[in-house]
Amino acid sequence: MENFSFYSPTYFLFGKDQETKAGEMVKRFGGTRVLIHYGGGSVVRSGLLDRVMKSLDDAGIYHTELGGVKPNPRSGLVYEGIDLGRKEKVNFILAVGGGSVIDSSKAIAAGILYDGDFWDFYSGKHIEKALPVGTVLTIAAAGSEGSPDSVITNENGMFKRGTGSDAIRPAFSILNPALTQTLPPYQTAAGITDIMAHLLERYLTNSKDVVTTDRLIEGLLLSMIEEGPKVIDDPDDYEARANIMWAGMMAHNNSCGVGRSQDWNSHNIEHELSALYDCAHGAGLAITFPAYLTYVWKHDPARLVQLSVRVWGVEDTGDDEKTIMEGIRRYREYLKRIGMPRTLAEVGGSEADIDKLADVACNGDGRDGNLYGFVKLTEEDVKNIYRLML
Amino acid sequence: MENFSFYSPTYFLFGKDQETKAGEMVKRFGGTRVLIHYGGGSVVRSGLLDRVMKSLDDAGIYHTELGGVKPNPRSGLVYEGIDLGRKEKVNFILAVGGGSVIDSSKAIAAGILYDGDFWDFYSGKHIEKALPVGTVLTIAAAGSEGSPDSVITNENGMFKRGTGSDAIRPAFSILNPALTQTLPPYQTAAGITDIMAHLLERYLTNSKDVVTTDRLIEGLLLSMIEEGPKVIDDPDDYEARANIMWAGMMAHNNSCGVGRSQDWNSHNIEHELSALYDCAHGAGLAITFPAYLTYVWKHDPARLVQLSVRVWGVEDTGDDEKTIMEGIRRYREYLKRIGMPRTLAEVGGSEADIDKLADVACNGDGRDGNLYGFVKLTEEDVKNIYRLML
Repeated sequence: MENFSFYSPTYFLFGKDQETKAGEMVKRFGGTRVLIHYGGGSVVRSGLLDRVMKSLDDAGIYHTELGGVKPNPRSGLVYEGIDLGRKEKVNFILAVGGGSVIDSSKAIAAGILYDGDFWDFYSGKHIEKALPVGTVLTIAAAGSEGSPDSVITNENGMFKRGTGSDAIRPAFSILNPALTQTLPPYQTAAGITDIMAHLLERYLTNSKDVVTTDRLIEGLLLSMIEEGPKVIDDPDDYEARANIMWAGMMAHNNSCGVGRSQDWNSHNIEHELSALYDCAHGAGLAITFPAYLTYVWKHDPARLVQLSVRVWGVEDTGDDEKTIMEGIRRYREYLKRIGMPRTLAEVGGSEADIDKLADVACNGDGRDGNLYGFVKLTEEDVKNIYRLML
Repeated sequence: MENFSFYSPTYFLFGKDQETKAGEMVKRFGGTRVLIHYGGGSVVRSGLLDRVMKSLDDAGIYHTELGGVKPNPRSGLVYEGIDLGRKEKVNFILAVGGGSVIDSSKAIAAGILYDGDFWDFYSGKHIEKALPVGTVLTIAAAGSEGSPDSVITNENGMFKRGTGSDAIRPAFSILNPALTQTLPPYQTAAGITDIMAHLLERYLTNSKDVVTTDRLIEGLLLSMIEEGPKVIDDPDDYEARANIMWAGMMAHNNSCGVGRSQDWNSHNIEHELSALYDCAHGAGLAITFPAYLTYVWKHDPARLVQLSVRVWGVEDTGDDEKTIMEGIRRYREYLKRIGMPRTLAEVGGSEADIDKLADVACNGDGRDGNLYGFVKLTEEDVKNIYRLML
């Protein structure tokens, strides 16, 4: 195991009706003037925004609102939020939504306290301080409710960049599984796929002797396999929603990823899919991850056999390739079962796009023509992986 | 899943030589005048205390020291620490040791800021504030490095009481697995047994549909089963020590116990063993837990079958009793393998003590004649469980 630090100071309030305690939580963490940041109409239509505002009103907390966050949140709205936050002299940002809303809120929280352009933080500058951020989560997926990360799309060129700092870890996160019951099945499934991908990116390690974190990851994957189909069949299955929601946080706050190298090649390969085809990130991962595993398994057959046997319940016959391929087949079956796509064509792609996809993946963002993770991938490797998605 | 809150704000620094960063960490959390609290001679003999003091010196941090913490830490030393801390105007407590040292440090940290008798906090009063506590952990066992809990023995009557408050969660904890390599095998094994008991107390729940936390607990138990014998056979197996140390923290910071009722009957039954025979808490648990499981399995055969099958690798033949008994047999085999006792006699007890043990367990500490957890136990039940330890 490698040396590491682990810090997850977020106060989690989990369960039914917990959003009614938003005001109490804001107060606990020192907020007196709050910018409530949210996305589209669903938090308005569902009455969630009203409930949160009422909770702040009841606690005597001043608040102002900024909606309009889109998936793959944009820099333009961050600037708007920073201006509004300064004008209103807010000292707390409350995100009501999913990963995009939370990431946008983190950017605003850091930007308000910074004299320069907030984009500096997404171009390499470390965030030293930020206003406290609270979240009321509405989808189990990105894990931003418990992470130090934020990803924003720069509208001046439409490229995505990320940043990470303990300063933008949420002060509190309210996780009410019932709030996810109104999600369309496809979004629910994309969230599940994203959570599983966060686990697999950590599972694909070159670190040795990482038994405890291996077992934690396997346990979370097994729980997703068990609970995923339940919520697809019955969107109102609160208990399954709850299990998925806690797993989603645990998958990405890194308690199961400490002390080991991690992969993230699949995320880098997928990114171009959601950028080009505007598909859900989780849907892109459903296409990418099985193809990636098929291509790279020879790098460490023992690890991939372990995954097949322990997570997908495949019998280890001693034929590694057979065992691993059966595991990948079951992974694909599972993704199909919950309604995720399997091929590029299903999200509007075709073979003709592959050169361009691989070029951006390997040479965009200042990359050197390769991707680095569990294995090093050349541009040709990446093309081969995209071909496996046809 | 039941509603819950979860808060684990401790900054963990994990790995080789991390104790040399003690000064840096104390500074990060605002300490300028530090009381270093420790136990017996081993931290002195090993040079650990010197390394920690040098780290504080290098950071320009004033420190004073108080040693002498014993297992089952005593109130007398807490009063001494409070007096010394006030006299020296310390603003930070640094625990260098295991669970007893950390628990004593937490008591001092709360006591220094309190006008009354610190024992009030161990008699029901909630700790509202405390000096920040840091830890340099030397044994994987109690989990106090990541918990809000502290247990102290009152010397005026020799009875134990516990308290819990977010105010005494450690600000940071330094976990260097190499520091545990010098432990005698028996202490190492008792620590492992304690960690597994923390997991089993959470596993034995009456909450339904807790798939994710079930899987997390099972994963941690599986990692202990794999790693435990390794460190018994080779005390210098750093990697196995590391896996056990992270599992020990995760077992008790409650990330795998949230949203579910927990048991803790076995801890209550064991407590009288370590009190009467002065055996290691872990050794007492090794005697208690298999006996307890044997007695209570009929309360929820499905859960116990699940434990046998998933954790102990027993084949589910459909005969619940057989499957469960085979799981308990394997648990006992494992405990024997790592050197733990099986019977009361092995820690100096006998049948003649049982009435007294059961009386204190059921009627001591203001109890009403019963124990409450996964199942309700009458005094007669508790006697029967003690008889299973003969």
